[in-house]
Amino acid sequence: MKMFHTTLFLFALLFSCTSHAAEICVGDLKGPETPSGYTCKNPANVTVDDFVFSGLAKAGNTTNIISAAVTPAFSAQFPGLNGLGISLARLDLAPGGVIPFHTHPAANEVLLVSQGSICAGFITSANTVYLKTLKKGDIMIFPQGLLHFQINAGGSIAIASVSFSSPNPGLQITDFAFFGNDLPTEVIAKTTFLDPAIIKKLKGVLGGTN
Amino acid sequence: MKMFHTTLFLFALLFSCTSHAAEICVGDLKGPETPSGYTCKNPANVTVDDFVFSGLAKAGNTTNIISAAVTPAFSAQFPGLNGLGISLARLDLAPGGVIPFHTHPAANEVLLVSQGSICAGFITSANTVYLKTLKKGDIMIFPQGLLHFQINAGGSIAIASVSFSSPNPGLQITDFAFFGNDLPTEVIAKTTFLDPAIIKKLKGVLGGTN
Amino acid sequence: MKMFHTTLFLFALLFSCTSHAAEICVGDLKGPETPSGYTCKNPANVTVDDFVFSGLAKAGNTTNIISAAVTPAFSAQFPGLNGLGISLARLDLAPGGVIPFHTHPAANEVLLVSQGSICAGFITSANTVYLKTLKKGDIMIFPQGLLHFQINAGGSIAIASVSFSSPNPGLQITDFAFFGNDLPTEVIAKTTFLDPAIIKKLKGVLGGTN
Amino acid sequence: MKMFHTTLFLFALLFSCTSHAAEICVGDLKGPETPSGYTCKNPANVTVDDFVFSGLAKAGNTTNIISAAVTPAFSAQFPGLNGLGISLARLDLAPGGVIPFHTHPAANEVLLVSQGSICAGFITSANTVYLKTLKKGDIMIFPQGLLHFQINAGGSIAIASVSFSSPNPGLQITDFAFFGNDLPTEVIAKTTFLDPAIIKKLKGVLGGTN
Amino acid sequence: MKMFHTTLFLFALLFSCTSHAAEICVGDLKGPETPSGYTCKNPANVTVDDFVFSGLAKAGNTTNIISAAVTPAFSAQFPGLNGLGISLARLDLAPGGVIPFHTHPAANEVLLVSQGSICAGFITSANTVYLKTLKKGDIMIFPQGLLHFQINAGGSIAIASVSFSSPNPGLQITDFAFFGNDLPTEVIAKTTFLDPAIIKKLKGVLGGTN
Amino acid sequence: MKMFHTTLFLFALLFSCTSHAAEICVGDLKGPETPSGYTCKNPANVTVDDFVFSGLAKAGNTTNIISAAVTPAFSAQFPGLNGLGISLARLDLAPGGVIPFHTHPAANEVLLVSQGSICAGFITSANTVYLKTLKKGDIMIFPQGLLHFQINAGGSIAIASVSFSSPNPGLQITDFAFFGNDLPTEVIAKTTFLDPAIIKKLKGVLGGTN
Repeated sequence: MKMFHTTLFLFALLFSCTSHAAEICVGDLKGPETPSGYTCKNPANVTVDDFVFSGLAKAGNTTNIISAAVTPAFSAQFPGLNGLGISLARLDLAPGGVIPFHTHPAANEVLLVSQGSICAGFITSANTVYLKTLKKGDIMIFPQGLLHFQINAGGSIAIASVSFSSPNPGLQITDFAFFGNDLPTEVIAKTTFLDPAIIKKLKGVLGGTN
Repeated sequence: MKMFHTTLFLFALLFSCTSHAAEICVGDLKGPETPSGYTCKNPANVTVDDFVFSGLAKAGNTTNIISAAVTPAFSAQFPGLNGLGISLARLDLAPGGVIPFHTHPAANEVLLVSQGSICAGFITSANTVYLKTLKKGDIMIFPQGLLHFQINAGGSIAIASVSFSSPNPGLQITDFAFFGNDLPTEVIAKTTFLDPAIIKKLKGVLGGTN
Repeated sequence: MKMFHTTLFLFALLFSCTSHAAEICVGDLKGPETPSGYTCKNPANVTVDDFVFSGLAKAGNTTNIISAAVTPAFSAQFPGLNGLGISLARLDLAPGGVIPFHTHPAANEVLLVSQGSICAGFITSANTVYLKTLKKGDIMIFPQGLLHFQINAGGSIAIASVSFSSPNPGLQITDFAFFGNDLPTEVIAKTTFLDPAIIKKLKGVLGGTN
Repeated sequence: MKMFHTTLFLFALLFSCTSHAAEICVGDLKGPETPSGYTCKNPANVTVDDFVFSGLAKAGNTTNIISAAVTPAFSAQFPGLNGLGISLARLDLAPGGVIPFHTHPAANEVLLVSQGSICAGFITSANTVYLKTLKKGDIMIFPQGLLHFQINAGGSIAIASVSFSSPNPGLQITDFAFFGNDLPTEVIAKTTFLDPAIIKKLKGVLGGTN
Repeated sequence: MKMFHTTLFLFALLFSCTSHAAEICVGDLKGPETPSGYTCKNPANVTVDDFVFSGLAKAGNTTNIISAAVTPAFSAQFPGLNGLGISLARLDLAPGGVIPFHTHPAANEVLLVSQGSICAGFITSANTVYLKTLKKGDIMIFPQGLLHFQINAGGSIAIASVSFSSPNPGLQITDFAFFGNDLPTEVIAKTTFLDPAIIKKLKGVLGGTN
Repeated sequence: MKMFHTTLFLFALLFSCTSHAAEICVGDLKGPETPSGYTCKNPANVTVDDFVFSGLAKAGNTTNIISAAVTPAFSAQFPGLNGLGISLARLDLAPGGVIPFHTHPAANEVLLVSQGSICAGFITSANTVYLKTLKKGDIMIFPQGLLHFQINAGGSIAIASVSFSSPNPGLQITDFAFFGNDLPTEVIAKTTFLDPAIIKKLKGVLGGTN
């Protein structure tokens, strides 16, 4: 009987030691960030709710210019993902909806169609176009940093879940990067071959100035 | 006009050069493997179908002892994932279905419930249990290498998609590792504290010998 | 002569600059953790004793149920290992001693027998068993996250040093994960195929409740 | 004297053993690729010329539509870089020259101005614009995967060397991705908010079809 | 019109979320370090000047014993490089100048000659010597951790920029490590095969004691 | 009963799929190498002996100029370590024995004294010396790429096992790199501050030419 207690003590000791491990590093959004992610929340305060997220259960609001919504579950929304090399997002595409050309600077993506039909494509550094219309249950890869898009290919709402190979994949929508900030029109013209008049018009639509 | 052609030539040159890049490395399942994954399929033979997989569209067969099925989309099934640090799988849990305790030796996991309700849990190195009943749309994290399970928590079928932080996460179901191979009963008894009689019974159920 | 001073000054400048480097990042166990490990102790306070550890010199106490002891030199015990991708531990196995089935969720392991004889084995994701009786001086590999065990194979004490490919490999002993915490008996029964009576008995031995 | 020979033999043995190491892995451009890069050229055939590249010594041809040239020294051009996590390129910008908006999907970039003056900028995922006119000797960072550009900011030729954190950084020029391939005009219109007429005009300039 | 505002709001929300990302982690030199680098400067205080560095524009002072100077742009001097896997330095070699044998413990190096001529070499673990005289525009690789040197091979000043595969490559000049600190002469003699008299002489030149 | 068979079939299918995984990648020394290591031996031919190595059981021959021996168990000697991020070696130091100053270009090292007493030290990039006399059971860290040495500190034989954070750490002994190959005496003189006469003498001892 005494031996059992010794065992338990031995393992308790071992476990308490290794419990300092960053095996689980729930992000502390208030703490400083590091190149490897957020600092860890005190393990003593971690509960199961740090590992569960319900934010993707509800459809995003698609009453907007693109008739679409992206709902992220990245480490900034779901700090349990901090340091884990993975994250998710939900896409809602109303009829006619489109996720315009964009990139994720820091992650590969896999899209899984859970409802409806989606036409998706990406373009490689070698300028090859890969295009496919996906049905429910299909999955498609979009390699890191490459331009890609998704278009609702049916007459009803389409929904997809997307998985990323980083807790913080980033998102750069080309149109917003070009026309949704204060980058001067003449600089855009010089670096995109577009006419200043077109640029100014799109700045008007997408909120850009200058 | 001549300048345009020069430009095109310049970029064609540039693109053809960089097209050698392993930016896309669809796995060649027949070639040798390496610690970083499969060797790459010849880029000239790559088509959009290398980036699309339909194997998760169909429900797995749950007419079995666990009333459940796991359908993987790892790099061995979907070679487009080779080298990309991500993969997926589909879980089907009939009423009463359960994915027994298991680990993924090489990947973190995020589970997304797409239908029904699932009770899931994992245990840390510090021997803490994290347990939660998940509803449709909930996501839950299972950190790399830690024991975890999923149980259908409702009266109807439950379905989930799981994402992994590796194209080849591995899967080790504890019961099958203990009782589904030729590991001698006496060794199992010594290393699990279980009685030989119980071990032999479970070997009978799970296909083990010795 | 003046030139020499200039040289010294030049290099002193260079060295003082690069001394900010995280070339050496002794862990500060009181600071916050990050996904890459502990924050670094102030380099000004680092001494040679931060790089030396004597905790493995003494035999672990094997007067317990498994007649064995594991003494870790992970980053939590030896903070000099922080961020270095390596750690050690010492195994002591009295006659009849056994390290029960366990995994290291975050590291590959290499075991070196320094005294006596050890029977060791591991099981792969493909459910293949690799089993070997090791003599003094033999080394054996246990790949990351896979179930493995060690048994004293001789009549006298056996000692081994084990090396890990992470400063914080983690340790999950299956029996303790199943039977040494508050995971409910009915959940364990459902996810392991074991009878509730057996589970309750093992919970009694290993300190579990519920 | 005999001892010396023994020593030499000892070390020769040791060195010949470790010479199998992938410490140096000059890429074999004819062999299969892997996710970690090219397979290695036979070490026996490696010479110093595998580690030296003269292709950046000569100015690129800037007689083209952008009055600029990019000359890469990536692993496809300079196989000695294979597996080393670094590569270079040379930029030549004639007066009025511009490197249009582009990304490197797989690498961070640092630009060093070696002649003339360059106005450069990048845009983050948070849609912030960072813009600067650089003089000779200035260096500037362009983080991985983010849209950026370079414009000759002076009246004479400008030259820069750029370094990347990958042997194979990739290069995706947005205009060429949008207008220089067979992506259908209607798809581009839907995913960029641009008018079909403008798209068709740019396809005419940049070699696109459909 | 209302829809446009909704869109803007949608994306603003998305962008503000993802702006927490460590996509850009300018190092806070005052904060604690981590194995992955410095903690990040508050993104709200980041300006374009965090991404631009002018310290390499000016020649280093070569009026010293080696007639040479190394000017680093590592993360300690240029905190914008924190976490980016890349850094630069400038070499100035007056006539007769030499960068003595040294290693970079944590990075591969690529050298680009921008003026003059440089004889450079490195030695592998297999004890093979790779030696080359480089002209303006040539680039040469020096693999991580291997001993290498650079000598001005012409009669006029030579300048080079060097790129590293780490923001903090480290620099260990063998002569300074052997003779420029307080390592006792007898220890140096035993570990280098050099006579104590020679060691003491070099300690005198390079500032060593003991 | 039929259900059991279905289960077994289900898992057999799953396991056979995932068995393609590079979870275990025993190196094929005859195949081509890659930046991530050797290509994998055909899994069908892998046996337990691929994971066990007895080469460290026997003392190295210390009848040589340094009265010491290094016996490696790197991936070239023990291919089971391929891709695993870890390796070992054995040090034998006869009385008076010394492992001269050396570096491991690609790995951190931890030394464990198993017999006798060893004086060991390393020097950082900041030129700080860390020196310690170690007793049996002590462990000491030598960070990647930094110069270090080991000296027998007692009157009897000393033995140590060393662990590395790479399957292929490399080994560069400074004296052999300087004086054991065909690097011309005048180049060595210029890059080490040593007199040509001393260099020629050491070349004579260590087998160098030129």
